[in-house]
Amino acid sequence: MEKLTDQILKDVITPRPQNSFKGTFGKVTLVGGNHNFGGAIIMASMAAVCAGAGLVTTATDKSNSSPLHSQLPEAMFADFTNDKQVADLVQAATSVVVGPGLGDDESSLQILKNVFANTNDQQNVIIDGSAITLMAHENIDQPHGNIIYTPHEMEWQRLSGIKIGEQTEDKNKIAQQKLGATVVLKKHHTEIYTSNQVYQLPIGTPAQAVGGMGDTLAGIVGGFTAEFNDKPAEAVLAAVYVHSAIAEKIAESQYIVLPHQISRALPAFMKKMEKLEDDHHIGFLN
Amino acid sequence: MEKLTDQILKDVITPRPQNSFKGTFGKVTLVGGNHNFGGAIIMASMAAVCAGAGLVTTATDKSNSSPLHSQLPEAMFADFTNDKQVADLVQAATSVVVGPGLGDDESSLQILKNVFANTNDQQNVIIDGSAITLMAHENIDQPHGNIIYTPHEMEWQRLSGIKIGEQTEDKNKIAQQKLGATVVLKKHHTEIYTSNQVYQLPIGTPAQAVGGMGDTLAGIVGGFTAEFNDKPAEAVLAAVYVHSAIAEKIAESQYIVLPHQISRALPAFMKKMEKLEDDHHIGFLN
Amino acid sequence: MEKLTDQILKDVITPRPQNSFKGTFGKVTLVGGNHNFGGAIIMASMAAVCAGAGLVTTATDKSNSSPLHSQLPEAMFADFTNDKQVADLVQAATSVVVGPGLGDDESSLQILKNVFANTNDQQNVIIDGSAITLMAHENIDQPHGNIIYTPHEMEWQRLSGIKIGEQTEDKNKIAQQKLGATVVLKKHHTEIYTSNQVYQLPIGTPAQAVGGMGDTLAGIVGGFTAEFNDKPAEAVLAAVYVHSAIAEKIAESQYIVLPHQISRALPAFMKKMEKLEDDHHIGFLN
Amino acid sequence: MEKLTDQILKDVITPRPQNSFKGTFGKVTLVGGNHNFGGAIIMASMAAVCAGAGLVTTATDKSNSSPLHSQLPEAMFADFTNDKQVADLVQAATSVVVGPGLGDDESSLQILKNVFANTNDQQNVIIDGSAITLMAHENIDQPHGNIIYTPHEMEWQRLSGIKIGEQTEDKNKIAQQKLGATVVLKKHHTEIYTSNQVYQLPIGTPAQAVGGMGDTLAGIVGGFTAEFNDKPAEAVLAAVYVHSAIAEKIAESQYIVLPHQISRALPAFMKKMEKLEDDHHIGFLN
Repeated sequence: MEKLTDQILKDVITPRPQNSFKGTFGKVTLVGGNHNFGGAIIMASMAAVCAGAGLVTTATDKSNSSPLHSQLPEAMFADFTNDKQVADLVQAATSVVVGPGLGDDESSLQILKNVFANTNDQQNVIIDGSAITLMAHENIDQPHGNIIYTPHEMEWQRLSGIKIGEQTEDKNKIAQQKLGATVVLKKHHTEIYTSNQVYQLPIGTPAQAVGGMGDTLAGIVGGFTAEFNDKPAEAVLAAVYVHSAIAEKIAESQYIVLPHQISRALPAFMKKMEKLEDDHHIGFLN
Repeated sequence: MEKLTDQILKDVITPRPQNSFKGTFGKVTLVGGNHNFGGAIIMASMAAVCAGAGLVTTATDKSNSSPLHSQLPEAMFADFTNDKQVADLVQAATSVVVGPGLGDDESSLQILKNVFANTNDQQNVIIDGSAITLMAHENIDQPHGNIIYTPHEMEWQRLSGIKIGEQTEDKNKIAQQKLGATVVLKKHHTEIYTSNQVYQLPIGTPAQAVGGMGDTLAGIVGGFTAEFNDKPAEAVLAAVYVHSAIAEKIAESQYIVLPHQISRALPAFMKKMEKLEDDHHIGFLN
Repeated sequence: MEKLTDQILKDVITPRPQNSFKGTFGKVTLVGGNHNFGGAIIMASMAAVCAGAGLVTTATDKSNSSPLHSQLPEAMFADFTNDKQVADLVQAATSVVVGPGLGDDESSLQILKNVFANTNDQQNVIIDGSAITLMAHENIDQPHGNIIYTPHEMEWQRLSGIKIGEQTEDKNKIAQQKLGATVVLKKHHTEIYTSNQVYQLPIGTPAQAVGGMGDTLAGIVGGFTAEFNDKPAEAVLAAVYVHSAIAEKIAESQYIVLPHQISRALPAFMKKMEKLEDDHHIGFLN
Repeated sequence: MEKLTDQILKDVITPRPQNSFKGTFGKVTLVGGNHNFGGAIIMASMAAVCAGAGLVTTATDKSNSSPLHSQLPEAMFADFTNDKQVADLVQAATSVVVGPGLGDDESSLQILKNVFANTNDQQNVIIDGSAITLMAHENIDQPHGNIIYTPHEMEWQRLSGIKIGEQTEDKNKIAQQKLGATVVLKKHHTEIYTSNQVYQLPIGTPAQAVGGMGDTLAGIVGGFTAEFNDKPAEAVLAAVYVHSAIAEKIAESQYIVLPHQISRALPAFMKKMEKLEDDHHIGFLN
């Protein structure tokens, strides 16, 4: 298992080309947030916007339109029960994030199926939270696309069939190969299983043990894979790393880290990464 | 009557275990906030989130869903008239907070009864505001659980039958023993009656005399008892102390303290407490 | 005409008594904000809360409940078309503020009449904006209470019948005496007509020429008259002064001042005033 | 093509006259933001308010009323399907901004026609986003007023018929002359075509490649043309310049710039411009 270092941030977060426009940095469509869990998709959307995606649209329950725009006018809204509109938005996306706060009832299932029916192999598809649970429970086929799962250990048990106590590197690797997808297994020292390598995240803090932390990670993965779409594999690793690197920084002066604080810190933190010279990458957090 | 000191903060707010996740820090379900008093339950929920509870769900009037998520995407929402959903959320909670902005009409009463029917003896149940008044007026039995009342003097009069001018330590103690509950009697120099001791809060400021201050306290008690669930009695004392300690700090530069400012200051203030060494605990506010 | 100085702030903004609670600082009921002008009553309510009123309730169009609580959970909400509830809230108030964003249609008129029917002589009643226009156009009698009008010049023309070009001190004084009310005539160098004196505000800045500035002033007058209810006449003068003193301070580094910024600056600014010693009152803004 | 310099800011952003009131700085009516794109008109409105317009009204879908007031109580709201109210607001405006988030369906078209039917030659009319696309696709005549288009290259292609690869200065100039309007052609080094001159913006940063950046520009143009209505041509140039000058400043410490940050920075940035002496205008950004 290879330990990730801040080198991954330097590899991914490079200066933007001068002659660029919002289309250069991709479109992210996020789908989730039922009537109860609107905060989850709002946090994921905030992460995608602050990570630097060019255009972000949030397909969610209509009751979430108002708080979404109250906090994040930069995101566009769609009613996630409008199948035609969601299909169009999914088809147009560079990256699709599905699952944060989606819920697991009949309506959630129909929405998930509609999303999955409209992805294609050129897209990054981040499958998170209730979307993973629904796939496992309802036996839904994996959709087209560059698939990235972001389960915690229980969700991974549901998806892979490997019990939490038995989730060894070898077993996880076999399950991941069978899926043909990237797996970000969220735990103390998160592990990332890719097609040719297994990575471990050596950083992170218990101050991150707060509801919404995973939704924020899913949003950053969505944002980075859209923005840095020429290197989507590295973008996933950088997203995982930046999420905990910022949290560690905030946790120096806070007992807990609120998820939205990580998103709001992204633009300034990414600027510092962009400026790092090669020989100074160690200790960048000081 | 024993005077509380900042030692209680050092006893309670200790470094988090490295290998922890959001489940480690408990679940808080808050119930309150009718169509008129939505701000109360929003302030209580913000306090619970910022205090560090692992997962926070707010059961409230549906008109409060949008402002809740506008300010606090970290909280989940439930419609407090959905008896089944509220019952599930109450049963799943480490700590239940009921009362902030609940109101005192027929609908409030039904919601309260539903909450009380679903608590158990392993839970902390914080009963605040209109919930206390409803219990007194409607002669409702105390529910199961580790019960913590947070009345102001008039609410204590209603609950205990002791008139405000006659609320002496001895009389209060007898009433508290009869209830078999913790009583946080909010007043100038708040008193806390526990099963084996009476404490007095020697700190606080008239800058706290602002609507919503009590809702915020109830939320911190909910957050701390869930997060520090191995020592719930101390967690209540720490919650009462931290609320006024932060207020005093803010009041050094403000004529009044807005309740939400206390919540927002919790993560940084708690970090300072966590770092305190034993021999330096006096004068930590400087 | 006597020029106001910062002495009025020192006279009014004195240290709070140690043994006080939210009831000590009064209740403010604000009525206004129709479907179009919700921002006006939100800004007035924010001013009343930040000025330090003990309890603040905002009676407004139901569409404004969500943005009110999104910004100001400290305020309570009432539907201004609920005559019974508004009557109760008006009767219970120390100070009533009516007019910001109320509008001038038939519904506005009914709401105004309901408010006016429920005030009494022990209350401060601040009449602002559309409420002044409605009184003039619909020929409505002045209600019971310590009446404070806050018109701009055109509204004063409507109320007093004195044309803008002819609003001299003498004519204004006669009109004010006839009304038996305090008149805060908002203009370049605002004038305050009280029962026994005319004051002029020598401070202020063109950076205040922004929509919502008057709503904020009305809210501060409401907050101060409730909080400093033992000296309501001085409280009005202090409210007018503090509004422009803070604006001047902000305008040192801003081309315009947004009204909500004045409210948010009140707690810190008032603290500075409270600390001022008598011999240092000149130049307090430095 | 003449390169714009910060001289344009000094020419336009001059000290406000002492004896001024909100009417002095004009009225802006913004029309846009359907059920999906509410964020666009909120960002444009925030820009107009922060730029210093005297009074700002936002005509938009009714679902956007709440998030508008949650962020911007300074703006007034109107339902954009209320033809009579929108007509009144358009007629009363110094500057009209139409298009941000308006959408391109049948309802958007009716709203646009209503706006265009009510402008007059004394007004500044900023036509942005979907409004440009609708004009081109539906063959709608240019309305009365001092017309300012703010297209990106694709929208300019639709309006002028000049393909993106062929949009040379000469061709653009001919098309602009035919329109008799100002054209702000948004691209890397934005170009402004006026009745007698072509300007180029030499500043800007790829950190601005974020959705909502254009909506914010349209709002600043609306705000500046209303506020500095004695020199509307210069006001447009200053708006374009200030938008990128602030973005460059923010981008010194951020990888991307969120559009609303530009608006929130306007009051402080404009103050610095106002204070600049003639011989110090070079390098003001340091």
